Amino acid sequence: MDTDRQADDVTDGRPARRGPSAVRLAADVLPLDRFNAFTDGVFAIAITLLVLDLTVPAVGAPVLPALSDEWHEFLGYLISFVFIGGIWFSHAGMTKLMRQADGLSYGIDLLMLLFVGVLPFSTNLMVTHLESPDVSVAVVIYGLNVLLASLTLSFLMFYIASERSLVVDGVADETLDAKVRQRWVIIGVNVVAIAIAVVLPLAAVGLYLITTVLALALPLVDLHRRRRS
Amino acid sequence: MDTDRQADDVTDGRPARRGPSAVRLAADVLPLDRFNAFTDGVFAIAITLLVLDLTVPAVGAPVLPALSDEWHEFLGYLISFVFIGGIWFSHAGMTKLMRQADGLSYGIDLLMLLFVGVLPFSTNLMVTHLESPDVSVAVVIYGLNVLLASLTLSFLMFYIASERSLVVDGVADETLDAKVRQRWVIIGVNVVAIAIAVVLPLAAVGLYLITTVLALALPLVDLHRRRRS
Amino acid sequence: MDTDRQADDVTDGRPARRGPSAVRLAADVLPLDRFNAFTDGVFAIAITLLVLDLTVPAVGAPVLPALSDEWHEFLGYLISFVFIGGIWFSHAGMTKLMRQADGLSYGIDLLMLLFVGVLPFSTNLMVTHLESPDVSVAVVIYGLNVLLASLTLSFLMFYIASERSLVVDGVADETLDAKVRQRWVIIGVNVVAIAIAVVLPLAAVGLYLITTVLALALPLVDLHRRRRS
Amino acid sequence: MDTDRQADDVTDGRPARRGPSAVRLAADVLPLDRFNAFTDGVFAIAITLLVLDLTVPAVGAPVLPALSDEWHEFLGYLISFVFIGGIWFSHAGMTKLMRQADGLSYGIDLLMLLFVGVLPFSTNLMVTHLESPDVSVAVVIYGLNVLLASLTLSFLMFYIASERSLVVDGVADETLDAKVRQRWVIIGVNVVAIAIAVVLPLAAVGLYLITTVLALALPLVDLHRRRRS
Repeated sequence: MDTDRQADDVTDGRPARRGPSAVRLAADVLPLDRFNAFTDGVFAIAITLLVLDLTVPAVGAPVLPALSDEWHEFLGYLISFVFIGGIWFSHAGMTKLMRQADGLSYGIDLLMLLFVGVLPFSTNLMVTHLESPDVSVAVVIYGLNVLLASLTLSFLMFYIASERSLVVDGVADETLDAKVRQRWVIIGVNVVAIAIAVVLPLAAVGLYLITTVLALALPLVDLHRRRRS
Repeated sequence: MDTDRQADDVTDGRPARRGPSAVRLAADVLPLDRFNAFTDGVFAIAITLLVLDLTVPAVGAPVLPALSDEWHEFLGYLISFVFIGGIWFSHAGMTKLMRQADGLSYGIDLLMLLFVGVLPFSTNLMVTHLESPDVSVAVVIYGLNVLLASLTLSFLMFYIASERSLVVDGVADETLDAKVRQRWVIIGVNVVAIAIAVVLPLAAVGLYLITTVLALALPLVDLHRRRRS
Repeated sequence: MDTDRQADDVTDGRPARRGPSAVRLAADVLPLDRFNAFTDGVFAIAITLLVLDLTVPAVGAPVLPALSDEWHEFLGYLISFVFIGGIWFSHAGMTKLMRQADGLSYGIDLLMLLFVGVLPFSTNLMVTHLESPDVSVAVVIYGLNVLLASLTLSFLMFYIASERSLVVDGVADETLDAKVRQRWVIIGVNVVAIAIAVVLPLAAVGLYLITTVLALALPLVDLHRRRRS
Repeated sequence: MDTDRQADDVTDGRPARRGPSAVRLAADVLPLDRFNAFTDGVFAIAITLLVLDLTVPAVGAPVLPALSDEWHEFLGYLISFVFIGGIWFSHAGMTKLMRQADGLSYGIDLLMLLFVGVLPFSTNLMVTHLESPDVSVAVVIYGLNVLLASLTLSFLMFYIASERSLVVDGVADETLDAKVRQRWVIIGVNVVAIAIAVVLPLAAVGLYLITTVLALALPLVDLHRRRRS
């Protein structure tokens, strides 16, 4: 019966009503399902925002050249989509380790969403100014936005790893440590990208494109390795 | 088996189908999961709406000065984000106490969402008119909107506290009473803010900024205290 | 064990994997949680769409007169919000009776959402043309849209009532019959409203306003009656 | 107890914490509920996007002729709605077979959503250019977008069918095989539609309209057959 009770606790990330539940409810515990639902809602909106910038060519003008002229907008949609998709991916990989949320995890999540919400804007800024004299400023601003979103997402992981009461049973310390290390690597890459953007903005854009492609390709490599073994 | 049955009732906020379920289904009971899902959807949309007001500077013009000129819009996004995030936070803290919803809680929630939905608009109104001669009117309108959203959210808490059948077992009366008192304090602060806005509109804006910062900082203070004990 | 099994079936509206599950999976069964999640997503977007039509008065012009000039837009937001909120309310009251969905319920739901999705547009059309010579046409179009949304929502109820395999155990036939009768009354009111709109369009608008206010007030009346008994 | 454990695993698509859970958590497993919630969020946004293109006729001009002039926009909303609704339908029919998701299924899903996200744009392109000299280019672009969305959705089905660890117990091989075959038929139809669009663009548009109508009608046929037997 004990294990059953714990299983229920995890099922919906809401405090159970039996045993030590009174204590838990009195404390800072907040439901994990709403944590995820609201976050997924903001992610879904942010990831589709740049579609609104695509303009249908006017009737009369040839379609293909008109669409080619919009390549900045298409590139922006692609970059924004892949990057926010990657954050969703990472976020789901973190919250699968959680049994419940609390006030601070809600707060960190909101801060992360604040930066994710402006990512479509800063992506748009970057791709619009790719050929402008101010390209460096635009890419650095994008880089800072990516860094801030990445950093606050990392804070969430750091906090989860430090608050064992939020973590489901059976998660090994090594699993948490590996995730924390992974976040530091990502932060490091983002800092380097900004440094590059100051000197060689277009090289930084290339780096962002490469990492997004890698992010999409990694699961495929993983699958191939798994299939072979 | 009895406790198990109750646990199932809570799991998804939907009436169980055994024992006294026929009575419950016939009554005014409505699912809690949809209550939360729809509310989170509207929250997620409202919180990202002001991103649409950020304009990417045209190519040719220097980027940084152009962005600085948009500080009203950025401030609006920030205030709106933090305030609606705070409502999400409070709402989740209320519904974690609920085992199910009913017609009246749905109705109160809709009224609350009606006011949350126009918050991006009234925030925009306030930040746009910060330096206009009509700043006082704009800040009072924002204050009234915040008060109405806050008031209807409080009604939800008052109603939950008065309808024991909606509350999960094991929640102490003191927990509910404390939440109700907390709502009265928030209502009081919002009334005072409007009074200030009539006389000193910019002081009221400062007060809104301070409370949002405090709202974000409180969980951190809480964490620090918990870690020390 | 039998009851437990059934409880699991209901918990997430997904077919169980034991006993007769193979049969069910092979059949037309579709998950209820996605039915609700997608529907709530479209509802949340549609209900906030008319906020985008509110324009912040330009700096310099007095704020209050400028806002008063926008009363059509505010009225539109209010009507659209209350009406779509009412559909959400009714929809939740129907799906709480469901244990699972199927292809046809998904299809009916999509058709309903198709009409709900244009409701903000037709509401906007009606309030914009309140004082135009073509007010009658505008109100009739709005009325037809409301009728179509209402009708397809009724189809969902009729279908649920006729497909016992979709209904949770313990729901009395009378409960289903009462819901079906209620839908016919709503359809009737909507037909009458269109007939009125042809002759006296502004009277029809008044009728729409009164019914939305009643819809909001009914739970309060209900609460008062419950408290007295 | 064993079956109970498995049932819990399925309930929310999150790894169980008992028995072999440590292994599962360490591996590539990702929660199914977030997979569905985020996907439904993007679907809900994409399906309502073309409503934004409907313009309310100005006051003074007769309403009906003005609305008739917008038939391209209404047709676009309808086609986009039905097509994205169909993808939602198919997606739910696939994920009901899943007990959990993993990195690769998240990746494939994101790729699918990337193409679904631009469907409103390419639908708009097609209906805007129905009478333009470049109609063929516009219809082929729409066809390619539909094909890419359809193809990536098929990849998801192919992957599920090949990864038994993602599938709920009790699903027969034939069920999976039938779904895979069904996807190949859909891909074939989409390739043929593009071929037709190159030569006879308006015939291809007709084909798209017929298939969407069929997709809506099929459940009705199914119901009729079920009722008769």
